Formats: sequence, structure tokens, C-alpha cells
Amino acid sequence: MNVTKLTCSSCGETHPAGEIHNLCRVCGLPLLVEYDLEAAAQTLSPESLRGREASMWRYREVLPVEDPANIVSLGEGMTPLLSVQRLGSAIGMKHLYIKDEGQNPTGSFKARGMTAAVSMAKELGVEKLAVPSAGNAAGAMAAYAARAGLPAYIFMPKDTPIANVIECREMGARVTLMDGLITDCGAEVGRRKEAEGWFDVSTLKEPYRIEGKKTLGYELAEQLNWELPDALLYPTGGGTGLIGMWKAFDEMERMGWIDSRRPRIYSVQAEGCAPIVRAFESGAEKAEMFANAHTKASGLRVPKAIGDFIMLDAIRRSHGGAVAVSDEAMLASVREMGRCEGIFAAPEGAACHAALVQLLMDGKIERDERVVIFNTGCGLKYLECFSD
Amino acid sequence: MNVTKLTCSSCGETHPAGEIHNLCRVCGLPLLVEYDLEAAAQTLSPESLRGREASMWRYREVLPVEDPANIVSLGEGMTPLLSVQRLGSAIGMKHLYIKDEGQNPTGSFKARGMTAAVSMAKELGVEKLAVPSAGNAAGAMAAYAARAGLPAYIFMPKDTPIANVIECREMGARVTLMDGLITDCGAEVGRRKEAEGWFDVSTLKEPYRIEGKKTLGYELAEQLNWELPDALLYPTGGGTGLIGMWKAFDEMERMGWIDSRRPRIYSVQAEGCAPIVRAFESGAEKAEMFANAHTKASGLRVPKAIGDFIMLDAIRRSHGGAVAVSDEAMLASVREMGRCEGIFAAPEGAACHAALVQLLMDGKIERDERVVIFNTGCGLKYLECFSD
Repeated sequence: MNVTKLTCSSCGETHPAGEIHNLCRVCGLPLLVEYDLEAAAQTLSPESLRGREASMWRYREVLPVEDPANIVSLGEGMTPLLSVQRLGSAIGMKHLYIKDEGQNPTGSFKARGMTAAVSMAKELGVEKLAVPSAGNAAGAMAAYAARAGLPAYIFMPKDTPIANVIECREMGARVTLMDGLITDCGAEVGRRKEAEGWFDVSTLKEPYRIEGKKTLGYELAEQLNWELPDALLYPTGGGTGLIGMWKAFDEMERMGWIDSRRPRIYSVQAEGCAPIVRAFESGAEKAEMFANAHTKASGLRVPKAIGDFIMLDAIRRSHGGAVAVSDEAMLASVREMGRCEGIFAAPEGAACHAALVQLLMDGKIERDERVVIFNTGCGLKYLECFSD
Repeated sequence: MNVTKLTCSSCGETHPAGEIHNLCRVCGLPLLVEYDLEAAAQTLSPESLRGREASMWRYREVLPVEDPANIVSLGEGMTPLLSVQRLGSAIGMKHLYIKDEGQNPTGSFKARGMTAAVSMAKELGVEKLAVPSAGNAAGAMAAYAARAGLPAYIFMPKDTPIANVIECREMGARVTLMDGLITDCGAEVGRRKEAEGWFDVSTLKEPYRIEGKKTLGYELAEQLNWELPDALLYPTGGGTGLIGMWKAFDEMERMGWIDSRRPRIYSVQAEGCAPIVRAFESGAEKAEMFANAHTKASGLRVPKAIGDFIMLDAIRRSHGGAVAVSDEAMLASVREMGRCEGIFAAPEGAACHAALVQLLMDGKIERDERVVIFNTGCGLKYLECFSD
């Protein structure tokens, strides 16, 4: 399609399109895909979207797949952006929205990244896929690998919610449960991948999951009629969605679809694992490994993210912030979102509601602003968190 | 909108629109909503759908809500119709599709019926909602009642998968677990509703769940470019979706969108609870109560359905049939659908795959026919069925 090259997010080294890449060959940091946006805009425009398929592949001109036959899809994306009057009123807000990613295939936002990564793996001739996951990426990887007819090797912490393990097995993936955290699972993939012939699909260690995730930004703009909101609250483990949206905003501005205004982006983490919050508050450019990480929100149990410096830069340039909330506050917010709006949220998504309450109290968000919360997954994948 | 009246499916007695109804006031059987389809077709046409919202409310002219402000929506419908080449090839089929209803809000097809029923309850001023459920309808009812701000009273069998119970409670519903089957739960609602002031939202005991479900038929036609398939396999507990699709086909023909050809409709049930299969095979117009009903597919654990006679009539007029499959075959089909296509199906949806294998062996379906399987829900709601 319109990919011109891949560029390192840190050192700027360019890499050719059409080849298999993981990290930058010079500095070992994440690569970002660049497009000929002028070419893309010849067929892709706000008007052209009318009547296109209701999936994230409607934005195909700014997605990396060359041959449409390689797209491995389960109908992901174009999830509803719900106006939540009752939930908003309870905290004095008039313009609150929830982007409900729990309605994706495999019940989480991870479907977006995996449809892009697995499609590109297929296009580039990759034969075996491996991934470390805190849970939801595993289910998505298992699903898209199965749909592509590729074997998937999945490494998850032993205490990942059981729903993720069962869905991976029912979809034919090879699952290994490990003592430790996602970072330990990632290290295991790293150690074994060469001998086993695995392609490492760890987030930001291959360049296309972020391309899938960026469609969150395109959809948000389209669903709000090309007027971005004042603030976004996004739960960050690896942070690929946050980075992806920031990239999407830039691409849309360059195509003339939106102006230079940006929503303030708030990274939401758990008190038991808040490396980005700590780095943001201390003014650091990168985050330190967070010791003794623990939280029921398994997707937030990421003590160190390779894209930390990109996240922190985007948060700061947007004039946003970073907030940590307790597990108790998250679970109370699950119930509040359920009771007020009928959305059974993942604890990570509910964390954004809890963070919003804090940000209102601190005066960082005003009650009349337009604010979007990202519910990254479906509560059904976290039954252990709830008493029956 | 375009509702003209409600007509009894059995005796033909008419009932006025704009009033609260349950069953026919004369004979106590289900009511069907009638529309001025000529008026509907003035603004609704295959062309007009281009660019409408990606939810089942895109067909609003043939849905019952008068004031759009009363629509209680979580973004339901317009689920993907997936071409499943690998799953098809494994049984020699070239044109097999899965309609993946697991991507609806609350992870099942029940969202369609409940968005319509709860919207109409809101429009007509109902204050308290009650429903018996085998599981998925409960979650959907809890969600839409919460979104509408109405209290929900839910009655489920004790052995309903726990995911349904947890999601209902997290959404603020009042849940009662009962010894017995959905029919016993329905009887309890019936006994108490007058004293408690509950509106009974049991399927087909109120007229609008079927209107929501019929959008399955509209979507199927739209997604196949107005060429219906040769055969449908649909898992039937209460059978509302099957009846609804049959009604949709009729409406679409009257609006000139499709011709008089119909897909053969196959009702799929569990060997442990197959009242429709038994009635179909014996040539009966109605089904007998199925004694000792048991199956892991909780949605098929419906020993007696009030709409049995409408289902049997539609199946026969379509030249279709009714097939029972074992729980073992269903669970093997869950794994086959997962392994081949990355779809983690509900046992009810997987039952259709198992039934398809039987129908191919029996020569009832040809390998080159276009066939659609309905996966009515997400496997995540049935974790008890799978060993971890």
C-alpha cells in the first residue's frame, strides 16, 4: 500500500519496507511505520469512509498490508463510542464517553494490534509466532494465528486469569505458564526464539501491532465527527494504544483531517504497578523497572515497557498526565460502570473511571470538558476479580 | 415509527400499537408486530443503508421504537459474517460462513432482543423488568436495564454458568438462582409479577425481543449483498432468532429487496434437550415438554418453548429440518472452530458445526451450497465446559 519505510523511534535509522523487522538494527528500540500520506489521501478521506466496512480495515490506506488477501480479520474495530449520561452525571460531567473495546473479537482491544501483526507476518512469510502476554494479547494472538493457519507459542504468568488460558488452548495455541511477570515471559521468548524459529510478536518489538492500535485514534476522530475530545484516559501496560493514537492524530493532521489541537492524554496505571506514573512525576524521560509489581488488573502488571520514552513524550506534549489508582477503586468502578451503563468493564478500563474521579477532584479535568474513557476489555475475562 | 398493530401468531386477533402488551388477550399466544412497509420503504432501502451507523438500529424504520430518544443501545448488531475457508475445507465445503454473535455487547445474540424490548419498555413507561433466563438473556437484560435506568429482576437455574451470574450482579441486577430449569424460572416470574409490579420480558411473552432478533435476517441479507444463502443452521432454545429471521425475510420480500426463495432452516438442539427435533420428526405441530432436559449448552436447556409451533412451521415451509447433537460433539466442534478460525464459540454455536457434519453425511446439505452457521455467543461465558 502506502508504506514508504520504517524509522527508529529513538535514533531515526531507516529500515526498508517489505522485509521482516523486529527492533531497530542500530539501537534496539521500536520502529515506526511511515506512509506516503499524500498518496493515501487520494482515496482515503472522511467522505470516502461512508459506506466502508465496519471494521478497522476501513482505514486500509494507512495500514501496512500490501495485498488485501493477506488481511487476517475477525471483524475487529469500529467498536461503539458510547455517550454515558448516567455515569457522567454521577460525577457532575455532561460529556463523558466510553470507547467499548470489549466488543472486539476475543473481548479486548488486543485484537487491533494482532490483526495487523499477524496479517503482516503472513504477508512477509513468517512461519511461527511467539508472544509473551499478561492475558488479553495471548487470546488475540491465538485467534489471529489460528485464522491465519500459523502456530502460536504463548507465554503467560501463572496468575493470569484462567479465561485467557482456556481460550488460547481452545484455539489450538501452545501455552506455557510461567512463574513471574510478563517481562519474564518476554525474556523467555527472547532466549528461545532463534533456536525455535519463532517470530517475536511482543508489543513494540515488531512494528505492526502499533499500526493496528492506532486505528483507535482514527475511529475516535470519525465517531466524534473529526472534533477530538478535550481529554483521554487510557490504561497503560505496554502503552501501544496510547502511542498509536498519538501517531494517528499526527497522520490525520498531515492529511488535513484535523487541526493541531490534541486531547490531553492521561496514562492510567495501578498503584501496585505504576512505572509511568513514577517517571512522569519525577520528570524522567524513561521509566525504571517497577519492583514487586502486583495488581488484579493483569493488563497493567507490566513493570517495564520498551516504549516508555515514547509514551512519556506523548503524555507531556499533550499536556496530560499519569495517574495511579488502587485495585479497590478499580473494582468499585467496574460496579459503577455496570450499574449506571450496563457495561461490564475490565478492571483496566474501570481504572480510567477511578482516575477520572481523582483528576476531577484535583482540578486537572473540568466537569464541562469532553472526556473519553477507554474500556480495553470485557469483564468476562476477569471472573476471578469478582465474588459470585 | 411504522408500526400499525400487533397480531396474534395463532388466532390472528389484533392489538393496538402504543400500549403495553404481553401475550394475546384472547388465546394467550405470542404477538407479532406489523408495519406499514410501504411507508418504511420510503426512507429505508438497500442503498439508504450505506453510511448508516454500524448497529442493528440502522434498520430503524422496521423496528418498533417511536421516539429515537427511547433507544437503549450499547452498539449491538452488525456483527461480522466471516467466510471460514479452513473450517469449510476440513469438511469439503467451499462456501461456509459464521455469523459471529459473540461480538455483541454482553457477548451474545441476546443483546439484539433486549435492546428492542428494553427500549420499548422505556417508551411505554414500564418501571420494573423481570426475566427468566438460561444465562445469556440474563446478562443482556441486566445490561440494557442498567443502561435504561430500570431495575431488573432475573431468575436463572442454579447450574447456569457462573459468568452470567457475575455479570448480572456487577450490572446491579437482582439475581435469584433456582433449582430447576428456565421453565421453572419462567413460572416463578409468572406467579410473582402481578404482586411485584414486574413487566415480564420472557422471550415471545412480550412482542419486541423478536423484533430485535429479526435484524439477524436483515444483516445476513445485507452482508451477502441481498442474496440469501442455501441453508442456515441455528441453535434453538426459545427459537426467537429463527422466528425473527423468518419474519425479516418476509418483510424484505414485501419491500422488494429479495425474491421468494428462502434458505432451508435447520434447528439445532442438544441430544439431552431436543423437543423441536422430536416434534419435527413426528410431524407434530407443537412440541411436547422434554423430560429430564440436560446439556452443557445452557442456552439449549429449554424443554418447552411457547413459540414452538411458529418455529416448526417456519422450518417446514423452508424445507429445512431439525438435528440433535451430543455434548461431546459440540465441545469437539468448539475446538475445531477455534483451531481452524480463531473463533471461541459458545457450545450452542458449535452445535451447528456438529450438526452440519451430520447433515452433510446424510446428504441433506450439499458440499457446494452456501451455508451460514450462527455462533450465538462467546465461549468465554462457558468456562465450566472446558478443562484448563
